[in-house]
Formats: sequence, C-alpha cells, structure tokens
Amino acid sequence: MFWTLIGSTAATLTMLSFIPQIIRAYRTKHVKDVSPVMLFQLSLGVSLWIAYGAYRKDPIIIGANSVTLVTLIVLIAMYFAYGKK
Amino acid sequence: MFWTLIGSTAATLTMLSFIPQIIRAYRTKHVKDVSPVMLFQLSLGVSLWIAYGAYRKDPIIIGANSVTLVTLIVLIAMYFAYGKK
Repeated sequence: MFWTLIGSTAATLTMLSFIPQIIRAYRTKHVKDVSPVMLFQLSLGVSLWIAYGAYRKDPIIIGANSVTLVTLIVLIAMYFAYGKK
Repeated sequence: MFWTLIGSTAATLTMLSFIPQIIRAYRTKHVKDVSPVMLFQLSLGVSLWIAYGAYRKDPIIIGANSVTLVTLIVLIAMYFAYGKK
C-alpha cells in the first residue's frame, strides 16, 4: 500500500511535469529558452510509449503518456505562438 | 522483438529528453524561460520512481530514472548559474 502510493505519486508528478512550464510560459509569454528539440523528442518518445502501451494493453502506460502528450502539444503551440516576440 | 524495440526507443527518447535542453542552455547561457517548478517537480518525481524501482528490484526503472535525475541536476545547476544574467 505504501509503495503503491509512492509509485502513484511518482507517476503523477512526472506525468504532469509540464504544467508548471505551461503556466510560466502563459504568464511571461516567453518560451525562447525552452528547447524545441526537447519538446519534439519527448513528443515522439511518449507517442511510442502510447503505442507500446496499446500493444501491451496497459491502460496506465496509455493514460499517463497521453496526458503528457497533450501538455507537450500545448507547449509546442505556445512555442510557435510566442516564438516571434 | 519489434515491440521491444519500440519500447526501448520510447524509454531512451524520454530518458534523455533534457539533453537538448542542456545543450541549448549551454550555448545561449539563458534559461530564464525554463520553469524551475517543473525542474524540481520532475526531480522529486524521478527520485520517487528510483525508490519505487529499488523496492520492485527493477533495474530498468532505477537506471532510466537515475539518468534523467542526473540531467535534471545539471539543468538546475545551470538555472542558478545563468539565472542572474
């Protein structure tokens, strides 16, 4: 039970890790120091995780990586929206 | 075999996702748009993953998250080193 809580907390913190970055970017309207290569590399990585999760029929892998992918897509959109400033 | 390759590629891409960010920060000497909350949240998250991996005796979970933790520590050091500029 204790370790399930540790694992769940770990998964939640990493899954939602880009939320603070989205909030910061929204407030400052600046994202130029954020690496676009990182954003695309991670998007490809979590997309492959989703495919792997689908093959393994693992709803946790699919769900957690889908949430991260959505936050990454938001950040990539912000990168292009604010990038010209 | 195909799916093992997909899973391994996914793990490698996500594990090393902060390498492009480190390279960008090193080149520009600017990291102020990167969210420090994200860096600390992720560091806590991967540290809990390492603890969970140790409990589960899973060398993949321990190894992958240890690599990510090292890159996060480097980025946090850069954040404070370049932050005053």
